[in-house]
Amino acid sequence: MCDREKNTNVRLSLPAVCIVWQTAMIILFGVFIRYDHESDAHWVEHRKHLNLTDIENDFYFRYPSFQDVHVMIFVGFGFLMTFLKRYSFGGVGFNFLIAAFGLQWALLMQGWFHSLDYTDGKIKIGIENLINADFCVAGCLIAYGALLGKVSPVQLMVLTLFGITLFAVEEFIILSVIHARDAGGSMVIHTFGAYYGLSISWMLYRPNLHQSSGLQVSVYHSDVFAMIGTLFLWMFWPSFNSAICDHGDGQHRAAINTYLCLASTVLTTVAISSLFQKHGKLDMVHIQNATLAGGVAAGTAAEFMLMPYGCLIVGFCCGVISTLGYIFLTPFMEKRLKIQDTCGIHNLHAMPGVIGGIVGAVTAASASVEGGHQAAGLCVALCFGIGGGIIVGAILRLPIWGDPADDNCFDDETYWEVPEEEEESIPTILQYNNHMRNKDIGGTNHQNQPL
Amino acid sequence: MCDREKNTNVRLSLPAVCIVWQTAMIILFGVFIRYDHESDAHWVEHRKHLNLTDIENDFYFRYPSFQDVHVMIFVGFGFLMTFLKRYSFGGVGFNFLIAAFGLQWALLMQGWFHSLDYTDGKIKIGIENLINADFCVAGCLIAYGALLGKVSPVQLMVLTLFGITLFAVEEFIILSVIHARDAGGSMVIHTFGAYYGLSISWMLYRPNLHQSSGLQVSVYHSDVFAMIGTLFLWMFWPSFNSAICDHGDGQHRAAINTYLCLASTVLTTVAISSLFQKHGKLDMVHIQNATLAGGVAAGTAAEFMLMPYGCLIVGFCCGVISTLGYIFLTPFMEKRLKIQDTCGIHNLHAMPGVIGGIVGAVTAASASVEGGHQAAGLCVALCFGIGGGIIVGAILRLPIWGDPADDNCFDDETYWEVPEEEEESIPTILQYNNHMRNKDIGGTNHQNQPL
Amino acid sequence: MCDREKNTNVRLSLPAVCIVWQTAMIILFGVFIRYDHESDAHWVEHRKHLNLTDIENDFYFRYPSFQDVHVMIFVGFGFLMTFLKRYSFGGVGFNFLIAAFGLQWALLMQGWFHSLDYTDGKIKIGIENLINADFCVAGCLIAYGALLGKVSPVQLMVLTLFGITLFAVEEFIILSVIHARDAGGSMVIHTFGAYYGLSISWMLYRPNLHQSSGLQVSVYHSDVFAMIGTLFLWMFWPSFNSAICDHGDGQHRAAINTYLCLASTVLTTVAISSLFQKHGKLDMVHIQNATLAGGVAAGTAAEFMLMPYGCLIVGFCCGVISTLGYIFLTPFMEKRLKIQDTCGIHNLHAMPGVIGGIVGAVTAASASVEGGHQAAGLCVALCFGIGGGIIVGAILRLPIWGDPADDNCFDDETYWEVPEEEEESIPTILQYNNHMRNKDIGGTNHQNQPL
Repeated sequence: MCDREKNTNVRLSLPAVCIVWQTAMIILFGVFIRYDHESDAHWVEHRKHLNLTDIENDFYFRYPSFQDVHVMIFVGFGFLMTFLKRYSFGGVGFNFLIAAFGLQWALLMQGWFHSLDYTDGKIKIGIENLINADFCVAGCLIAYGALLGKVSPVQLMVLTLFGITLFAVEEFIILSVIHARDAGGSMVIHTFGAYYGLSISWMLYRPNLHQSSGLQVSVYHSDVFAMIGTLFLWMFWPSFNSAICDHGDGQHRAAINTYLCLASTVLTTVAISSLFQKHGKLDMVHIQNATLAGGVAAGTAAEFMLMPYGCLIVGFCCGVISTLGYIFLTPFMEKRLKIQDTCGIHNLHAMPGVIGGIVGAVTAASASVEGGHQAAGLCVALCFGIGGGIIVGAILRLPIWGDPADDNCFDDETYWEVPEEEEESIPTILQYNNHMRNKDIGGTNHQNQPL
Repeated sequence: MCDREKNTNVRLSLPAVCIVWQTAMIILFGVFIRYDHESDAHWVEHRKHLNLTDIENDFYFRYPSFQDVHVMIFVGFGFLMTFLKRYSFGGVGFNFLIAAFGLQWALLMQGWFHSLDYTDGKIKIGIENLINADFCVAGCLIAYGALLGKVSPVQLMVLTLFGITLFAVEEFIILSVIHARDAGGSMVIHTFGAYYGLSISWMLYRPNLHQSSGLQVSVYHSDVFAMIGTLFLWMFWPSFNSAICDHGDGQHRAAINTYLCLASTVLTTVAISSLFQKHGKLDMVHIQNATLAGGVAAGTAAEFMLMPYGCLIVGFCCGVISTLGYIFLTPFMEKRLKIQDTCGIHNLHAMPGVIGGIVGAVTAASASVEGGHQAAGLCVALCFGIGGGIIVGAILRLPIWGDPADDNCFDDETYWEVPEEEEESIPTILQYNNHMRNKDIGGTNHQNQPL
Repeated sequence: MCDREKNTNVRLSLPAVCIVWQTAMIILFGVFIRYDHESDAHWVEHRKHLNLTDIENDFYFRYPSFQDVHVMIFVGFGFLMTFLKRYSFGGVGFNFLIAAFGLQWALLMQGWFHSLDYTDGKIKIGIENLINADFCVAGCLIAYGALLGKVSPVQLMVLTLFGITLFAVEEFIILSVIHARDAGGSMVIHTFGAYYGLSISWMLYRPNLHQSSGLQVSVYHSDVFAMIGTLFLWMFWPSFNSAICDHGDGQHRAAINTYLCLASTVLTTVAISSLFQKHGKLDMVHIQNATLAGGVAAGTAAEFMLMPYGCLIVGFCCGVISTLGYIFLTPFMEKRLKIQDTCGIHNLHAMPGVIGGIVGAVTAASASVEGGHQAAGLCVALCFGIGGGIIVGAILRLPIWGDPADDNCFDDETYWEVPEEEEESIPTILQYNNHMRNKDIGGTNHQNQPL
């Protein structure tokens, strides 16, 4: 499969997929999607009927959190993936593309399962649907993290189409059949998304990826760009985990729990990063990624009475485990398990997601009897992630998607018009060399030589 | 006009304009501006009188949206204009300056028209006035997009002074005389702002601008910076279009409509960008700009019952039209119409703005009888933009404003202290060359040569 | 002290501090910290008891402001400190570390003073505690600004531990003993934090810092990164100053006042920056920093009836004073007072903070009798800042903290794994030089030479 000639020209396939799928969205939205009680012009009557004031429209409970989640999806995930030297366009740009497509498909898929009004067969959407659509997209963006730089935008669209579909089914089983709870999606979003991506990466294993290793590195400013992503994810994670919690103390507690969990993670990440590097120097990869693990793990139990110290403990463990994962597990997985994980999503999403699921099960078990439901939910997420990833990976191996050759990965040149580099030093060099040569061969000594 | 010696020293004019105008603002604010019922210390009585709770203060309905709009104005517009190789300081910095001035003047101008308390002759301001001031500023920032890199900060201040003034009059006519509706400002903000800027650019046509063409390009990291602007505009546009809508379902629906419109635009932008480039490679200019066209077009009809599928259709069309505009129309306008449009605001604001106005008229017409009012509003916006731009352009042609010469455009050196470049490779080269020369002329072969 | 061999290896000390202190946090949180009425599962009963609706949970009054403050702390302060050529990792990364630690310690320290429930000896936390913790952290981040590039992460942790402790005591005295008001923290946060940092810097004076002067400069893109910090601070400062104000008109007015103050500052900053530079060119340092001075000065009086024109006057003065400070005072302080202030916090936080304290005292005095209390509060902030800074500075002079040598400051290499630079031009140069040499010594003239 690696020997075939690679054609990375997506001039027909990418426009075709975008136009046809967007048209399909329009038709399906036309048939199925309408405003719900709170976003429809009948709100005034509805409000009076329920004796509510305007401020009790769900919009005001959730819109600030929604916007924070939206920032996480587009700037957070997008900029976190700009860290590669020459794949910043692909990182932030393809993230943008697949998120914009995914949220439309998610509104439909999740709508059919959760928001279908059986009186008229329509999906009724409001602000909570928008948040859930962003959540659903997050699963696919996590999967993209494992594949960053190694797939074509067409493959990413396919990954998203199937990913959203699988997500909606998995979510329905976990939340509505098993009745597990997962407000911040440790299981539903992170565990599923990470194993989905890792399984696809395993299916698309590239034995000669080392041929691109010169580009699988960061440069100084690309690392700073990635910190924009890290920080917006870190700061807004309390909104992510609280966005669809119950009004009142539910949202309030979820935000506090996540805030504490994340704070604790930063310290242990720094500790482990320094401890395992020569001379105690910090590694930007750890700071960019492992500091977020606490937010992932706080997801399931976010609105539970986890207690502030409990959050700190969870965050403490996640920082340690995630950073150790970057140091030891990622190289091991690439070498032994043949799983190439560009962004290290196994350390940032898979392990903390499973931890979050377990924390949720334990907390729930200690409070009531539904601990088993939580554990069952975690298993479903794992199965859908791995199983779905293998199937979708097999589809993505077909030689029709325009993916790059092994020596052509992590390079924006493949799918983007990349601007010429600043070559300011080149003319200087030329002039200098001319000058030197002239001297060597007896040329005149120019007075106002540059340099 | 192009042959005259250009003096770009603004050491007297820029401080003078800033200090004098800011002093004028203080005096006018002292005479005219006071807090309104909801921001004044009398709120408690007012609240009790109307039997409201504190949370029903307009602040809580609109402050999150206001902050999102604020981010769009300063980070969104500012960073969108950092894409040029050597004009990032001017892009984000002058944007900052004129927005900070413009919002003060807008509070006065819009206040006189809309918030004047006739009992005491004072303008009473609250959170909604702040949002409207930011909106008003947006018109001038759009105009700046056409002129980016070709004007002095003093010219920009003049552009803003007149732009805000024209905006306030135009807005009053459209909203309060004609009684058209335009919650997100497709007509009032985008159509007006774009044609205002394009007309000025036409008046300031530079036949020899090609002399600066080496700087009218991006570099890799400046394109990534611009994506920060793009994404914050894209993500927060739902807040922009819903910020001053009616409480309750109005704000809720406007946010949903805009969110959907924008999602759809991304896919068609990608499709057209890929389809019209050699090898199907995406062009960052399109991704940075045309993806936003749906937000512009959703403005007028944002709170109408546009229906989710209707939003997707509008977004679909805008992505196509805007991207085609960048490919075909911008070069045509520069060559044939002598309109030099640095950021392509014709494609991002002018055309989508007009589309938004038409969508508003059609939606309104299908719902009631005020479709004609909407169409009239669109015409007023066009007239004010073009007419105002020609007059202000004539003023800006006066040879007193310190604008750069044709071979000196798009260069931060003109108005900024620019740091020395990293010249890390230069010493290496010097040493290397010395080494080579030594070898050539029989020098000793140093052991630990760098490189 | 400067002659001793410097060991910057923090491989044991940094992990030890992080792990031990984080463990201490977990224990103290376990003993002391619980949810408050509004974030606890008993909210439903509490709400019914007080006849409130869910939306009147304090969460909805303050969460949007909290998130804005959170962005200021992590992205605002963090990116403002990325302006140095080779200290962007340290700027944003150490900011991240000490803020994440500081907010935990602040929840405890402030909790003991302000949120201790005497019935059970527990600190009860809700959203307002989170905001206050972020505020408390801000004081230490301001202090970091003076020391940027010259201290080790271990020193920063120590600075934060003591800084938070001092802050909590100082805040308790000012707000609860003296009963001064300081909603936006001009005195409590900015004056204290700035003098704390300046005193430490004075204690850690480096006479040979000029040896690192080659790195105490910015490059083009690091200045653009810093503008991200500037703008997020500038935009969200209205949230900072209003976050813990009274519900209703208090928050509303504080936001308006700060918004106006900051707008005015931008214009005078630009004016002074241009006026005092050769050729009237703007200096990025001023735009990045002095534009924020108005927000600092609006802190104390934010919720007072300062009147819109009063805000503009305060902003006007702060822009002038702060910019003049950067031009004249910072070099003077370094040369004569032996205070090296990397970010110029004296101009951005110290002077505007004192101005804010005075504005608060005058405004309060004109309204009632508590003007003297405000003045006393300002003195307490100054004393704690200077006194605390001298003591902590003495501790930080101990030769055990791993700080860099004078010729090794402002360099991320010391504490970070820094990626290799892009050396794309080097191969070209090599090839070119080979080509030239071949020519010189009679080599063949290759046809398709690169370059």
